[in-house]
Amino acid sequence: MEVTAEVIAQHFNGEIIGDPQVKVSQVAKIEYGKPHNICFLANPKYQHFLLSSNAGIVIVSRALLPKEKVKPTLIVVEDAYQAVASLLDMLNTLKKSKKRGKSILSYRALSSKISKGVYIGKFSYVGSKSVIGKNTQIYPQVYIGNHVSIGENVTIYPGVKIYDSCKVGDNCILHANVVIGSDGFGFAPTPDGSYKKIPQTGNVIVEDDVEIGSNTVIDRATMGSTIVKKGVKLDNLIQVAHNVEIGENTVIAAQSGIAGSTKIGKNCMFGGQTGVAGHITVADGCKCSAQTGIQGSVSEEQAKRGVMGTPAIDLMTYMRCYAKFKHLAD
Amino acid sequence: MEVTAEVIAQHFNGEIIGDPQVKVSQVAKIEYGKPHNICFLANPKYQHFLLSSNAGIVIVSRALLPKEKVKPTLIVVEDAYQAVASLLDMLNTLKKSKKRGKSILSYRALSSKISKGVYIGKFSYVGSKSVIGKNTQIYPQVYIGNHVSIGENVTIYPGVKIYDSCKVGDNCILHANVVIGSDGFGFAPTPDGSYKKIPQTGNVIVEDDVEIGSNTVIDRATMGSTIVKKGVKLDNLIQVAHNVEIGENTVIAAQSGIAGSTKIGKNCMFGGQTGVAGHITVADGCKCSAQTGIQGSVSEEQAKRGVMGTPAIDLMTYMRCYAKFKHLAD
Amino acid sequence: MEVTAEVIAQHFNGEIIGDPQVKVSQVAKIEYGKPHNICFLANPKYQHFLLSSNAGIVIVSRALLPKEKVKPTLIVVEDAYQAVASLLDMLNTLKKSKKRGKSILSYRALSSKISKGVYIGKFSYVGSKSVIGKNTQIYPQVYIGNHVSIGENVTIYPGVKIYDSCKVGDNCILHANVVIGSDGFGFAPTPDGSYKKIPQTGNVIVEDDVEIGSNTVIDRATMGSTIVKKGVKLDNLIQVAHNVEIGENTVIAAQSGIAGSTKIGKNCMFGGQTGVAGHITVADGCKCSAQTGIQGSVSEEQAKRGVMGTPAIDLMTYMRCYAKFKHLAD
Repeated sequence: MEVTAEVIAQHFNGEIIGDPQVKVSQVAKIEYGKPHNICFLANPKYQHFLLSSNAGIVIVSRALLPKEKVKPTLIVVEDAYQAVASLLDMLNTLKKSKKRGKSILSYRALSSKISKGVYIGKFSYVGSKSVIGKNTQIYPQVYIGNHVSIGENVTIYPGVKIYDSCKVGDNCILHANVVIGSDGFGFAPTPDGSYKKIPQTGNVIVEDDVEIGSNTVIDRATMGSTIVKKGVKLDNLIQVAHNVEIGENTVIAAQSGIAGSTKIGKNCMFGGQTGVAGHITVADGCKCSAQTGIQGSVSEEQAKRGVMGTPAIDLMTYMRCYAKFKHLAD
Repeated sequence: MEVTAEVIAQHFNGEIIGDPQVKVSQVAKIEYGKPHNICFLANPKYQHFLLSSNAGIVIVSRALLPKEKVKPTLIVVEDAYQAVASLLDMLNTLKKSKKRGKSILSYRALSSKISKGVYIGKFSYVGSKSVIGKNTQIYPQVYIGNHVSIGENVTIYPGVKIYDSCKVGDNCILHANVVIGSDGFGFAPTPDGSYKKIPQTGNVIVEDDVEIGSNTVIDRATMGSTIVKKGVKLDNLIQVAHNVEIGENTVIAAQSGIAGSTKIGKNCMFGGQTGVAGHITVADGCKCSAQTGIQGSVSEEQAKRGVMGTPAIDLMTYMRCYAKFKHLAD
Repeated sequence: MEVTAEVIAQHFNGEIIGDPQVKVSQVAKIEYGKPHNICFLANPKYQHFLLSSNAGIVIVSRALLPKEKVKPTLIVVEDAYQAVASLLDMLNTLKKSKKRGKSILSYRALSSKISKGVYIGKFSYVGSKSVIGKNTQIYPQVYIGNHVSIGENVTIYPGVKIYDSCKVGDNCILHANVVIGSDGFGFAPTPDGSYKKIPQTGNVIVEDDVEIGSNTVIDRATMGSTIVKKGVKLDNLIQVAHNVEIGENTVIAAQSGIAGSTKIGKNCMFGGQTGVAGHITVADGCKCSAQTGIQGSVSEEQAKRGVMGTPAIDLMTYMRCYAKFKHLAD
């Protein structure tokens, strides 16, 4: 499949600098680009590669447009990262066709309800009274307990385990070995020093358009629901404890953990290995640096300024104090 | 099922304030309580909800008894958290009946010994010469290697993997995708810079009444055993390295990691994302704040005071020094 | 199987101190050694155990040779840790015989290519056009997608999931529930605050002689490959993001995370719970203390000195400044 710069530019409403008739057939990284490749430049760190690139076409963010003349034909857009997403999406859809049908070596309870166009892979299990929405893809070795509800167009990769009574919305993607609905970590101390388990009788609700990374765990609520709202993106190996609520379109990087009953606002961005204490509130739009430990509620004002450190303080304050810390021994 | 305040109060030996004939049918969180609900109040952070609650009954810890008159009937106990545990336990036992029998699509070696009342779910595997105790529930897609011993009344959720020769005691709960007995991380450097694997020939012993959270890993010992003692509670995504020993009734929150050959005392409480170095000893009853990095042994005295920071120092010292740190740039 | 000290000493080219005719039959830890045991002493922390040990033989590093006379026969070598590795290896090979054959309850696509001597365990899945090299052991409940290539003499423990188009070299060991090739965490923000998924069209390449710990995740590249080079050892619960490259013989301890597009050099040693930011370079031979957060590229000079702290600075500088920090409140 060969496409000209002209066709691609039209698709993205981009401006062409160079030969509009150049043809490309494959996507590549800018540092490896050859004449038949289309590449993209969205990060200033990679700007120098453009000058020596042999790619046929480079989609470039307007802000990174070079002053020098370069070999590739350029397609200038506002945000090259977003453009390439659409491009890959287009190519991907062509390549990957959906599977359908229930495999012989899978199990589904008679009382479960499997909608049209669903694929259930081998060695997968669907429990009683569970409902699977249209065109949902369940890969091999997935476990779906009883009374579970899964929406439409959901992709569940191998090894995912969903406990009883949990709900997953439409268009979600759950990566391999994700666990949803395991018991929250709740124990009451007894006089002899041992602990008595507090039964975890709630569930987990994952709303629409959520993506969850491999080996991430979301525990069920003690009572009520642990809630992951619409559009949330969770990376790999994340811990979401019982009764947590994560607001719309919040993005959390790998290995972060949210302790019990905490409420995270919408549109937040958390770096990797972040920790958030239990029973607190983090305001909308909070930017939290990697490895930060949030121990108390974060106000709207603080959220805007960003936080860092353990316990977390204002990002700029932390950085300025740390700059001093580095000279304490002088 | 409707129950009166009188019946519940009797069950817990609690004192009634309000109408003893009020009937409730369901448990709910105090902030959402309606007339047919029973709620509880054990955390001072939620005390204000009591004043506006419409719940039929609230079980309240004596220390949190409000001065004002409130709408719900109150049942006053010493520790409401513990009372609600019993209550949920009672309700839960009624709801959840145990499964029995070995599924057609499971595999167990002829030389394995499966006791009475055991359930083995579909796509689960039990290796040769392994022993499963009475009434133990093995969910689908579980792997149990050879020469493994599992006690009575154990619950093993989907996707758990137990390597050869490991032992799990009675009444344990292993959540989804837990791994027990994988090889410890041991390599000997060679002159050319590569590493030679040290075979890990020991096993893991998990004693009675232990609960292990989803995706937690406990590695087998190089020689001898990695030991998790009676009553220990491990949260999700925890790392327990080879030859570690964790003392009775110690509770460790999510994403913490204990490096090789370290001995953790009994009755310790570790916050989330804690790290403990290898080859050290942590005294009984140690309270360790979230994200702390313990790099040397912790004495009994230090354990009592609690630790924080990387490397860990006394909790109060850390907090007081951090208070100064925050003003270093002033 | 009984062996004399003479035979063992010859095997390791070691020097005997004591009776060369002493026979032993089992390996044990030095603190528990009995007359029929062979133990080893490679760590100065355990040196005192030698004085009271009842073991038949102790293999001891020359540097730890005691001045006093001791009961066990000693075999003196340069590095006892390495010697014991060979010893255990020898014993282990005798004990553990490889499995062969494809289980009835496994699935492999007709277009897959399974070489000689391969074992495919029950409930495992091998997708279309995938290739499995000679003598590779695939335990039960493993998922191998389409177009995957696995080398020779590889061990894949239960629950491992390998997505489409990934490659694993010869002699690798993948522990339980490892995930290879799940989508990288890439999203483009849209004007309404939601995110659009960037398709992850690359793969993961794991070269020869790599060992990967339980529940570790390696994401596929957005374009191109995420690469784990020859001889790398990754512990449990590690996150390797898309487009990362990890150099030869680098060793990373549990729960560490490497963010996207970062390049880690060869022969590095990372402590546990380390975090490395995205789009940076860490030089060869870098020693990184546990819980460190590397936020910018690490030069060769800095790598030699070692790093610590968040953001990471020179190890010794951090330790000296932290020593001052601890007295800030005095």
